[in-house]
Amino acid sequence: MTEKPIQLGLIGLGTVGSGVYETLCRNHALLEARCKIPFLVKKIAVSDLSKKRDTEVPAELLTDDWHDVVNDPEIDIIIELIGGTKTAYDIVTSALRAGKPVVTGNKALLAEFGSEIFKLSSEKGTPIYFEASAGGGIPIIQSLQTSLICNHIDSIVGIINGTSNYILSAMGEGGADYADALQKAQELGFAELDPTLDVNGWDAAHKALILATLAYGTTISPDKIFVQGIENITSKDFNFAKKLGYTIKLLVIIRLHKDSGKLELRVQPSFVHDWHILASVNGVFNAIAVTGDIVGETLFYGRGAGKNPTASAVISDVITAMRERLHPEYHTGFLPYAQPYGIMDINETISSYYVRFQVADQPGVIAEIAHILATFGIGISATSSAQGVSDCNGIIWNDLVFMLHACEWGQLQLALQETAQSQFVAPNPCVLRIEHLLPKA
Amino acid sequence: MTEKPIQLGLIGLGTVGSGVYETLCRNHALLEARCKIPFLVKKIAVSDLSKKRDTEVPAELLTDDWHDVVNDPEIDIIIELIGGTKTAYDIVTSALRAGKPVVTGNKALLAEFGSEIFKLSSEKGTPIYFEASAGGGIPIIQSLQTSLICNHIDSIVGIINGTSNYILSAMGEGGADYADALQKAQELGFAELDPTLDVNGWDAAHKALILATLAYGTTISPDKIFVQGIENITSKDFNFAKKLGYTIKLLVIIRLHKDSGKLELRVQPSFVHDWHILASVNGVFNAIAVTGDIVGETLFYGRGAGKNPTASAVISDVITAMRERLHPEYHTGFLPYAQPYGIMDINETISSYYVRFQVADQPGVIAEIAHILATFGIGISATSSAQGVSDCNGIIWNDLVFMLHACEWGQLQLALQETAQSQFVAPNPCVLRIEHLLPKA
Repeated sequence: MTEKPIQLGLIGLGTVGSGVYETLCRNHALLEARCKIPFLVKKIAVSDLSKKRDTEVPAELLTDDWHDVVNDPEIDIIIELIGGTKTAYDIVTSALRAGKPVVTGNKALLAEFGSEIFKLSSEKGTPIYFEASAGGGIPIIQSLQTSLICNHIDSIVGIINGTSNYILSAMGEGGADYADALQKAQELGFAELDPTLDVNGWDAAHKALILATLAYGTTISPDKIFVQGIENITSKDFNFAKKLGYTIKLLVIIRLHKDSGKLELRVQPSFVHDWHILASVNGVFNAIAVTGDIVGETLFYGRGAGKNPTASAVISDVITAMRERLHPEYHTGFLPYAQPYGIMDINETISSYYVRFQVADQPGVIAEIAHILATFGIGISATSSAQGVSDCNGIIWNDLVFMLHACEWGQLQLALQETAQSQFVAPNPCVLRIEHLLPKA
Repeated sequence: MTEKPIQLGLIGLGTVGSGVYETLCRNHALLEARCKIPFLVKKIAVSDLSKKRDTEVPAELLTDDWHDVVNDPEIDIIIELIGGTKTAYDIVTSALRAGKPVVTGNKALLAEFGSEIFKLSSEKGTPIYFEASAGGGIPIIQSLQTSLICNHIDSIVGIINGTSNYILSAMGEGGADYADALQKAQELGFAELDPTLDVNGWDAAHKALILATLAYGTTISPDKIFVQGIENITSKDFNFAKKLGYTIKLLVIIRLHKDSGKLELRVQPSFVHDWHILASVNGVFNAIAVTGDIVGETLFYGRGAGKNPTASAVISDVITAMRERLHPEYHTGFLPYAQPYGIMDINETISSYYVRFQVADQPGVIAEIAHILATFGIGISATSSAQGVSDCNGIIWNDLVFMLHACEWGQLQLALQETAQSQFVAPNPCVLRIEHLLPKA
């Protein structure tokens, strides 16, 4: 055991920060026994010193100025858990410039400024650790960096937003409406008062960018990812999905197309076969399926957010940071196997689709849509429909579902522009991709 | 990049050994870029030099004496992949004594001699790595050692034998008989010609002992684990399971009972709710669910055996071994958080049960069994039955299923000894535990 304890500086004592502090206290004996390094929390920066907290913290640890933490010469490692990208950027870059290793779970920060931050870390020879940034308690970062190190990554397919997965699960299992499911999620604390980033897919997109960066050795700008949220999915879509042997999940898809050398990179709600293991990932749980050329298919499952699961990931980073602080040469840093992969245009991506139109109950409507799809070379594999209700003009609007054979997204969009011209077809049909995920067994 | 390459010695060029050699060659550029350490395979020991191989290996690398590898002063790291426990024991202990770090995937060796080998490794300050010993390509060892380091482990529940899971999946999905499913598994190379250790549960038990050792910081002798195989399960049991909303899986259960301070440690075929994520683990896939006090429920899924998946795990160890060879002080070794946990007697373990009796179609038989169960304080939650066929004496033997409320295993065994006395009840009913696994969502 080293004599002098490693001194930690914690910035942020919100949900995750308090989980980290409490766990470092509660499981202190276990941690020191396992990592054989004595440590202590030296200082904690909070935004408001007078705030009442559930977590008991000795008053002398607290400061309301993060500079006190970063500039404390005795503090070895900075743990940034305030979220947001403005102050967090200043904290992380100041710490790295001061040669202090950083542990962070800030996905928005890394998605937006990862390229610059990783470069700074590399230039300064000061590590940054971010296990908690892409899957809460799921050890996906370490798995990509070390366990799967000998693999070229073929694809990463994941459910990595707990809020949206909770909403979709409630709609799928209980038949809830979107609005009710969202309200329930908010009541249970699984959704923020402003759930925008969760339901519009951008929280998942931030995590996807971090995963893609690790898997392919290069940072990717946020404007390269195609993102679609879950706001337009209705319980009707779940009814159709169920009948057809599917459920609906918000999937992150990162997939290398070896023939074109291009990366498919998108977040979209999708049909998933009900026998697939991802269909069993319900509620606030997350799962990330990684396929490598050597290991084949793997999947990592767990709580993707929340106080303690995220604290577990943060602390695994803290331990690694302490070990590498004592043996700095051990650190290898960001996996440098960058290939010049382009990002595939969403219009070039191919899959089969579920499309639910709302159509007026008029003779010839089905023929009209089918004809337009055929004109664009798009085949129909199955259809289904459900009786609707009449509008104020006495026109009955039915749900008409087409399951379409594989075609390019761009081609489908052109066809849908054409169907939207018909007075008997409501605009903005619900379009969901059908992901044929391996393996069945 | 270090100047002098690390030199590896490979012992064994069977399925996994050839996968390791091929991957080290094929993905050499990627590996050196990622780990920043040059390396080469210096020597490979095989049992028969004249054997034709699918893997192309320069003849000058080969030797048929493993001592040539261990004793080569230029070889830094020994990779033991011959399987079995006799020669493997000599190889591993010789290498450790010679101060050469060892990478192995030999679960039988570690289950039987782990205590001695870990002690030797610790005394010599020479690490041993064994990621491939308990889940093929699934990075469970590293996850327990580092990612989940801040967690007290509450339980580990897993499907960790691919052969038996393939057989059970074929019986569950396709309605195959046990014998047919086993034959199919053998034809496809998923089962050995002698499948004993796979179907009788002992391969899973070896892996369970390694996982328990890591999770609880102490080695456990193989005679402490209760092991039941899948040989007596029939397609009838799958029919009943399906009707009742379950499937059947061979589960490893490692669970700490905090009240008694005892570890439940067993391998048993069990009913699993069909909505649980473990029910979706089919074919040769494995999955290991780990619950920690901080991270909550996690699950790790992937190919639990086979050439390349296992090679992926072996190579992740090789890379760690190389990094720690260059920075030996970094190595922490076996997690030392041993608590004086006793092992729970199987008779004390409690669960609900599925019991399928074969009973003569006679008035009073159901009453008789129900009465005996009641005498032992065992409640019945549901019953189901299926018409059988008559034997040579013209007696019709029906399948009679009782779903039993939770009781001690020992109590149930006493009751079953009593029912076996009846001339109208066939001996050896099929008893399967019902595992109420969390979480539903």
